[in-house]
Order: sequence, then C-alpha cells, then structure tokens
Amino acid sequence: MTGSSEHIIRAYDDELQALNGLIARMGGLAEIQLAAAVDALVKGDAERAQRIVAGDRALDELEQEIDAAVVRMLALRQPVAGDLRSVVAALKIAADLERIGDYAKNVAKRSTALAQSRQMETLGAIARMARLVQAGIKQVLDAYLQRDARLALDVWERDREIDEMYTGLFRATLTYMMEDPRNITPATHLLFIAKNIERMGDHATNIAEVVHFMVTGNRLEGGRPKGDTSSYAVVEPESPRSGGEGR
Amino acid sequence: MTGSSEHIIRAYDDELQALNGLIARMGGLAEIQLAAAVDALVKGDAERAQRIVAGDRALDELEQEIDAAVVRMLALRQPVAGDLRSVVAALKIAADLERIGDYAKNVAKRSTALAQSRQMETLGAIARMARLVQAGIKQVLDAYLQRDARLALDVWERDREIDEMYTGLFRATLTYMMEDPRNITPATHLLFIAKNIERMGDHATNIAEVVHFMVTGNRLEGGRPKGDTSSYAVVEPESPRSGGEGR
Repeated sequence: MTGSSEHIIRAYDDELQALNGLIARMGGLAEIQLAAAVDALVKGDAERAQRIVAGDRALDELEQEIDAAVVRMLALRQPVAGDLRSVVAALKIAADLERIGDYAKNVAKRSTALAQSRQMETLGAIARMARLVQAGIKQVLDAYLQRDARLALDVWERDREIDEMYTGLFRATLTYMMEDPRNITPATHLLFIAKNIERMGDHATNIAEVVHFMVTGNRLEGGRPKGDTSSYAVVEPESPRSGGEGR
Repeated sequence: MTGSSEHIIRAYDDELQALNGLIARMGGLAEIQLAAAVDALVKGDAERAQRIVAGDRALDELEQEIDAAVVRMLALRQPVAGDLRSVVAALKIAADLERIGDYAKNVAKRSTALAQSRQMETLGAIARMARLVQAGIKQVLDAYLQRDARLALDVWERDREIDEMYTGLFRATLTYMMEDPRNITPATHLLFIAKNIERMGDHATNIAEVVHFMVTGNRLEGGRPKGDTSSYAVVEPESPRSGGEGR
C-alpha cells in the first residue's frame, strides 16, 4: 500500500467516525425529545412542551449536517461495496430520526391542548408504550454503531408488541369518548399522541431494516410483523337498554 | 473528449434516464393508489379497498429498485456536483413516495371499517382534499423531471391550503362525534383518513424541498408554511342547557 492510499483510507475512516458521531448525537436527541414530550404530557407542563417544540430545530439541523457529510463523502471518497452501503444507510437513518423528532414535536404540541383534562389511566399506558419505543430507538442505533444485524432484527421483531399496545389504547380511548361527549376532544388528541408514538416505533423498525441490509446485504423478508389491527377496529357504544353493563 | 469518456457519459445519461423513468412510474402509481383508495372509500367498495392494500407491494418493490439503481450509479459512475445531487434526490423522493403509498394503503384499510356508516358530507370534503394532494404529487414529480425549482416552490407554498382543509375537517368531525356516540368509531376512522391524506401532502412538500435543493443548491428557508393548527384545537360539545342551538 502506498503512503498516499493509506492517507486516503485514514481520512475516510475519520469521516465515517464523524458521521457515526452525528448519527449517535441525532439519535440521542430524538430519544430525549420523545421522553421529554411524554413527561411534559403526563405532568401537564405546557412551558416544557413549548421548549420541546422549539428544540426540534436542532434535529432538523443535524439531518442537514448528515446529508451534507454524506454527499461530501460520496463526492470525495467515492466509497464502494460495504462502505457505500454504510454511507447511504446514514442518509436513510437521519431521515427516519428527523421524522421521529417531528412526531415528538407533535406530541408536545398536543399536550398543550390537554392541559385541563388529563386522563391518567390512558396517559400511563401512553408512557409505557413510549418507554418501549424509546428503548427500540436506542437499541437500533446501537445496532447501527456496532454493525449488529441480530440486534437490529430484535428491534424489528418487537415492533409487534408496540402495535398491540396501540390497538389496546385505540379501543380504550374510543370507549372513553363514548362515556361523555366532553371527553371527545381530549381523547382525540390522546389518540393522535398514541398514534404518533406508534409511528415512531415504525421508524425504529425502518432503521432496523436499513441496518440489517447494511450489515448483511439482505433485506428482511416477508413484510414487517404487524400487531396494529386498529385500522379495522369497530368499537360500539353501550346499548342504552343494557343499562351500563359490560363493554 | 476521448471516445471512452464519451461512452461513460452516455452510459451515465442512460442510467439517469432509467432512474427518472422509475421515479415517474412510482409517482404515477402512488397517485393512482391515493385516488383509488378515496374512490373505494366514497363508494364503500370493500373489494376494491382490498386490491389497493395488496397493490402497495408494487410501490415497495419500486423503492427497492430505485435504491439499488442509485447505489449502483454511485458505485460505478461516481457522480459529483449536480449529478450527485440528482442521484441522492432520487433516493429521498422514492422514500417519500413509499410513505405516500403506505398512507393510501391505510386509507383503504380504514374504508372497510366504515362500510356501514359513511357520512357523505365528510367524505366529500376528504375527496376534495385528496384531489389537491394528488395534484401536488403530480406537480412535484413534474418539477423533479423538468428540474423546475419554481414549480416545486409552488407545491411547497400550497401545502398550507391542504393543512387548512384538514383543520376544518378535524373540527367538523369532532362535532359530528359529539352529536351521537354511535358516530364515534366511524368518525375516528374518518379523522385518521383525513390525517393520512394531509400527511401525503407533507410528503409532497418534502419532495418539493428535495427538488428545490437539487436544482438550486439552496434550501427552502424558514420552515414550511403551516396551516394545520389542529394539534392545538379544542372543540367543546354543545352545552346541554343550550337545547341544541347553534354550534
């Protein structure tokens, strides 16, 4: 190997390390935004919610920084094979993390519409779902940084659990709406909040697919596991004749 | 210019044409899926809805085909400057079109939960919003194919109109829920359908940003125009004392 090509390889490795650092930073920030948004929601902290909305800008800027770094590496280093897959993966992962940030922002926005009427039971279920999603985001970024396809597959498989929690929340929230028309507005926002968090889980699943492909060169087969059947769900109000008996 | 570099350039142009063809095909299919899903919804055609759900697979496959073509071009042609921006843009646009397809699939799924209780007024408003979104998708793909930043900017600016339609639909649907608890399940699905279509508009706006950057090298400044204020919306049920008077 000539001194010059060694130099090029070292420069490429340095740039890849820098890119990984940006992805790790962006992922960490997305996790924090999610956790903070749910915390502000549960505590009814409108001021904090506003800071979270403002904080989304940092994620948008990190995505642009990652995009620029990727384009620069493609132009100057012209990576091939596994290196090329890594660089393209970074671009895709940044786009998913940006979306996760958008959903956290939306959760924070909606929490302000809920300040007066927080149904603690549903909020508890939302917080539990959010913790699972947050763990999935953390794990899939570890999978990216460690080039660990098995870890990515694990996140991908566990999305079903999040979907099932969401379907349960969907049904419970519709029932809550039916109990009193005054519940309808807050419950609708809770429903969208739950959906946002479920979508963040989908984006973690997307990242898992990208990481798996990056490491193995093979796509995860057969479509992702699906536990969200809420799109088909029909929840009936209690019949007036049943006098408030069972659901 | 040597014969050999001419050959390389011609091969690159051919590949770029092929890539543009794939994007045009994928965009056309996404448009068709959206229009068909809304049509199946309005007509309560569950059989057609199922075909639309199955048809999403073709969009997923096209995205994979575009990804593979992009990675191949990056590895073999090593484009720089404007060419590199075009190729990276194709990757991002394909991801947005895939999401648009996912939303169309979800509209089709939900339409089957609505078969028995279709509120024609809301369905009409949804269909109008969908036509705007469809026109935006078509226009932004023309902007990509013609490298027309002005056309892309126009789509970007008009997303506000779609957001405003959605906010109106949000309020009307909540009011409809409050009128009768039996409306709650179908209205919730209508709300998510409307949200799905609004999100497709956001993805057309994303594509507009990608096209604008690809053509001009400059990012659209100042965050996108926002007409969707529904995240902050609170709709109150009629007071029982008002005896069913005005909204």
